[in-house]
Amino acid sequence: MRATIKDIAEQTGFSVTTISLILNDKGERFPDKTKEIVKDAVKKLGYRPNQIAVSLVKKETKTIGLIISDIRNIFFSNLAKGVEDECRKNGWNLILCNTNDHHKRDMEYLRVLADKGVDGILYAMASESDDEKANESIALIGSLKIPYIMIDRTVDGYPCSVVKTDHLKGGYLATKHLIDLGHRKIACVTGPQYLYDTINRLKGYKKALSEAGRHYDAELIIEGKYTIESGKEAVDILVDKDYTAIFAFNDMTAYGIYSQLKKYNLHIPEDVSLVGYDNIFISELLDVPITSINQPIYDIGIKAADMLIDKEKSSEVVEMIFEPELIIRKSTRRI
Amino acid sequence: MRATIKDIAEQTGFSVTTISLILNDKGERFPDKTKEIVKDAVKKLGYRPNQIAVSLVKKETKTIGLIISDIRNIFFSNLAKGVEDECRKNGWNLILCNTNDHHKRDMEYLRVLADKGVDGILYAMASESDDEKANESIALIGSLKIPYIMIDRTVDGYPCSVVKTDHLKGGYLATKHLIDLGHRKIACVTGPQYLYDTINRLKGYKKALSEAGRHYDAELIIEGKYTIESGKEAVDILVDKDYTAIFAFNDMTAYGIYSQLKKYNLHIPEDVSLVGYDNIFISELLDVPITSINQPIYDIGIKAADMLIDKEKSSEVVEMIFEPELIIRKSTRRI
Repeated sequence: MRATIKDIAEQTGFSVTTISLILNDKGERFPDKTKEIVKDAVKKLGYRPNQIAVSLVKKETKTIGLIISDIRNIFFSNLAKGVEDECRKNGWNLILCNTNDHHKRDMEYLRVLADKGVDGILYAMASESDDEKANESIALIGSLKIPYIMIDRTVDGYPCSVVKTDHLKGGYLATKHLIDLGHRKIACVTGPQYLYDTINRLKGYKKALSEAGRHYDAELIIEGKYTIESGKEAVDILVDKDYTAIFAFNDMTAYGIYSQLKKYNLHIPEDVSLVGYDNIFISELLDVPITSINQPIYDIGIKAADMLIDKEKSSEVVEMIFEPELIIRKSTRRI
Repeated sequence: MRATIKDIAEQTGFSVTTISLILNDKGERFPDKTKEIVKDAVKKLGYRPNQIAVSLVKKETKTIGLIISDIRNIFFSNLAKGVEDECRKNGWNLILCNTNDHHKRDMEYLRVLADKGVDGILYAMASESDDEKANESIALIGSLKIPYIMIDRTVDGYPCSVVKTDHLKGGYLATKHLIDLGHRKIACVTGPQYLYDTINRLKGYKKALSEAGRHYDAELIIEGKYTIESGKEAVDILVDKDYTAIFAFNDMTAYGIYSQLKKYNLHIPEDVSLVGYDNIFISELLDVPITSINQPIYDIGIKAADMLIDKEKSSEVVEMIFEPELIIRKSTRRI
């Protein structure tokens, strides 16, 4: 049978407390001779600390749980890489949960992570979560008594830490760029419109238009789903509308638009200027590299992991806002 | 302090085994009176089964651990989606670990997953693992006493279940396609050459050349790393070589080649024909859509998860081999 601290106590005559302190490097007060006897007994009995017991006592598993909604979106895999790299630097581990954008799955994984005893949760809520579902998720994560940080979303009445990009500014920069190039009929393909990041990009879009003395045209605002497929569908919807540019609210949507415009024999940027959002590596790779709004997502991953790992920081409620940046490529042109 | 089964035994006078059987609904053989006494004691002492202990006894957490080497490679995110979907169908959960292709991280995550009590592990070894490291990983995973399935890799002397694509056939199909189009000077950009999947793609490449009465030219075989960066570097190396086509051993490498050829003003397919491998969605999206070898990776994920979830299947040692398929697009042309 596995040796316990009690066995070492019986063997050496010292108390369980004494032995525990020595084994946990808190035995400064004891003579070297005592430490030596204990260490000899450890060796002789083949004692190994029980990992689960250690976790229970230290209340620490050195593990972060990351819940994301779509692992096939490179935005999230870059985030995961940032979190993973920071964990690794600190000797921590990362457990990644992919919800395929289902709220129900969010709820399940939150419970699973609590069961597995993670020390912190980084949570990108399923984008299908409307206000009611978001409330439910936030109430659950709050009840787990585990430090957590939300990505891009908070809910009124539940103060919590959040990392986000200034999406209003991002939406503004994208639209302003198109306006500066002479475009006035600017369509946009949004994400689900109850999401914080969608709402704010849309505010930025409207603000830029308004500054240029233009009202937005509701017909040119298409609600998408942040997927390639919804980008393609948006082009079908826009086919008989009058527009010269499209602002896609993420790059995956932009790829769908990019691909579908070809089917209508519309060329980028000659016929349509296109701006994406997220600045995924594919945008640079395409034959007409896509102008995009960069979110420092890898850095966001690093920063969020650091916040969860650092005990002092993880107990604070903070809002970290990252700056978006316009990366101009060849998909936008002056008209 | 938390009540244990031992406390109930002391309280009631019944043995720990009796109580355990009754609490786990296996106490048919005992009189109702006995069950009643035990249940009263449970209530009185406020006994709750320890979740970790339950997992240990039932030997089931309904969780699969998936270890992958590069979450930013869409090949792996598609695999993860297949595993996740099958888990979900069965009410299981998936814990995903990304190793950034480090053997050391493989070893750590294998231990972490065992600590977390997963019921099965699906393991794509870090591609930096040479034979010595692979041996170390396989020895560790074998010692964990958890059902596992390897992806694309086994090690002699360690019989274990594996899912893989017939990469020899894949390499053959890609090369044969180029030969059929009249190409004879066919370069290839491999993955690390100690990997099973690299070795077999290379065998297929050589077999197709040999059938066409050609010897392979060692100068045209460039060792890459299955990354975009190594695809770019390969083009730099090939610059003064005589070739008309390149077979990239994965699509990420093909994207690097695609992008770097432009820098030399070489056009696909006019100057160079290009075949990739994996058939990632980006290959279809590019302006010159890339001919690629499809691996049914999503289905592999489904099948592997099913094997781990099904108790009877998970105890067998099986080799599942999936068929690759040539998807012809516009990056290859007759010369």
